[in-house]
Amino acid sequence: MKHGGDIYSDGILKGKTLIDFSSNINPLGVPKSFSEHIEEAVSMLTVYPDIKYRALKSNIKEYLDKSYSYFGQNERKFGFNDKNILLGNGASEILDLAIKSLKSITVVVPSFVEYEDNARKHGLTLKYSYLKENFNYDYEDILEKVKTTEGLIIGNPNNPNGCKIDKEKFKDILDYCEENKKIILIDEAFVEFTLDINNSFMDLINDYNCLFIVRAITKFYGLPGVRFGFGITKNEKIIDYFNLMQNPWNVNCFAEVAVKYSLKDIEYIKQSISWIRVQREMMLNELKNIKFIDKVYNTYGNYILIKLRDINCNELYEKLKEQEIIIRKCDNYKGLDNKFIRVAIKDEYLNLKLIDALKSIKM
Amino acid sequence: MKHGGDIYSDGILKGKTLIDFSSNINPLGVPKSFSEHIEEAVSMLTVYPDIKYRALKSNIKEYLDKSYSYFGQNERKFGFNDKNILLGNGASEILDLAIKSLKSITVVVPSFVEYEDNARKHGLTLKYSYLKENFNYDYEDILEKVKTTEGLIIGNPNNPNGCKIDKEKFKDILDYCEENKKIILIDEAFVEFTLDINNSFMDLINDYNCLFIVRAITKFYGLPGVRFGFGITKNEKIIDYFNLMQNPWNVNCFAEVAVKYSLKDIEYIKQSISWIRVQREMMLNELKNIKFIDKVYNTYGNYILIKLRDINCNELYEKLKEQEIIIRKCDNYKGLDNKFIRVAIKDEYLNLKLIDALKSIKM
Repeated sequence: MKHGGDIYSDGILKGKTLIDFSSNINPLGVPKSFSEHIEEAVSMLTVYPDIKYRALKSNIKEYLDKSYSYFGQNERKFGFNDKNILLGNGASEILDLAIKSLKSITVVVPSFVEYEDNARKHGLTLKYSYLKENFNYDYEDILEKVKTTEGLIIGNPNNPNGCKIDKEKFKDILDYCEENKKIILIDEAFVEFTLDINNSFMDLINDYNCLFIVRAITKFYGLPGVRFGFGITKNEKIIDYFNLMQNPWNVNCFAEVAVKYSLKDIEYIKQSISWIRVQREMMLNELKNIKFIDKVYNTYGNYILIKLRDINCNELYEKLKEQEIIIRKCDNYKGLDNKFIRVAIKDEYLNLKLIDALKSIKM
Repeated sequence: MKHGGDIYSDGILKGKTLIDFSSNINPLGVPKSFSEHIEEAVSMLTVYPDIKYRALKSNIKEYLDKSYSYFGQNERKFGFNDKNILLGNGASEILDLAIKSLKSITVVVPSFVEYEDNARKHGLTLKYSYLKENFNYDYEDILEKVKTTEGLIIGNPNNPNGCKIDKEKFKDILDYCEENKKIILIDEAFVEFTLDINNSFMDLINDYNCLFIVRAITKFYGLPGVRFGFGITKNEKIIDYFNLMQNPWNVNCFAEVAVKYSLKDIEYIKQSISWIRVQREMMLNELKNIKFIDKVYNTYGNYILIKLRDINCNELYEKLKEQEIIIRKCDNYKGLDNKFIRVAIKDEYLNLKLIDALKSIKM
């Protein structure tokens, strides 16, 4: 399973519930504001969605402006047009198409396995820029690599380790790409978890034509099942490419309603902020005390990369599965090996359950 | 609007309800069996779908076997494997990918505008086989054209007119394509409306490697908003192509639940059969009595192609819009012109409303 623990084969399809620490989803669950309005989506089932998704795009634009105030900053007025908002059946579709529009790409690794897979299946020339040994970005190397490719893809924060981009240090790369008509794809699927919304590059979209930002409601809004992600860009070439290549009606009516309500659910956002602030700190501290854990890497996401000692990821995976816990083995990430695992940050009860399970393992 | 009446620009976004005769959706609405289980889908929102969609595929296979008995025939045992079932975010995705897998294609026209658009955007060489003057398939011409292309796409029943394939007459084309390793894409999005399930080519999938059948829950099960379609084939080349090209998790959890319940909702199926049987007959008869209607073409679908006299489709569209009724202008269909419109078959109340509106038009 290239995407981590398979809760279906070992769990759901056998009628067993596994605790899935391999999947990085907000444990607060479905925003009530959405589930309370599910009938609104049911009433939309019998008509085709608006082929231009005008109401949906308007809700996204409102979110992008207001999210700054939700996260403690001043509200913004980006003034995006409908055409700057590209809609996807999950962020997967956005990433796939954006990558497909390029002939060559630099991928910062280790990172989401789909970046490389998409590049490979569409025949792009691939260059890798590896994170440094401390699992931070190697900005000089990224700049060198991007000089030889048409585009760059980088996670902010990066998955599986959780480092975030230092905007100061990234400026040379941005300026170089803008000047040389390169494309920078920034995957911000987890950016809300960093808690500082200024970590997002959204505020630079109006200045940098080279920027393409990918967002989703999958992670922070706890909705992987509904399938919705979006891209933001001022780059006409990519906009035209999406308009040509995308199938009509690619977003379902439940995703439309999820966006309408979840993205302005201030209560949900506040609770999520409180939760991640406390639990991330707790987990980072507790994991360091496990004897077969060599290193716990700092993270701005809702997941933690861990380096093991005296045990490999496959052995640990099996031992935890006996306790009905699934973790993410990281041996299929470029630049990592079987000494690495990733765990999600869940609610306090489950986090402590994981810590207890880890402590109980005899070696 | 290349896809017909835009109920959003003139209606929904202005707070107005238009009666949409441009969209061919079962008027019985959302199957209750699905809406009653909507909470099951809500509970699936916080986990990624099974990347292999095992339960979903099993439900589709069950439907394909049992649908024969639902429509008055003996149940079948096709014995399809999971890999023979290809899943799409709407039939649009299935059609787009299947067409993209080819280098050249014969399109039977007039037909769904997306066939040609997909072929053009992926750079296929396009050949057209026009329906005959009576709007039936020209089997000899199809055979000649398909000799010069890698594949064929044909609607069964065909949209916008509603003719269905005569399997006897089609046999030469099938045999030729099988022998010469061509691909036949049969769009059966409306096949349930023909009421005779033997009109489907599903029973030939096990014998003909060249066959690829496209189905959806959009039309007969009244669910365009949920976005779900599927393809059935034994053709390994296309199966491999889909496996390589498709994005993971392309089907949302509401579509999974819709399939689980709607496709075995015998009550819904029975009511739909009664409705279409009566209303199709009524509409075909009534429309013939409208003075500015030149011809009403026989149909096996839930839509009727109409040739006008002394008025063109744009004029009629505007006159009906004044009465808050939207029809499908057919002037952007290859082989048709502004003398043609298409209307959906809706429930009795709305059908009579359309007939009255047509009768009221002064010329």
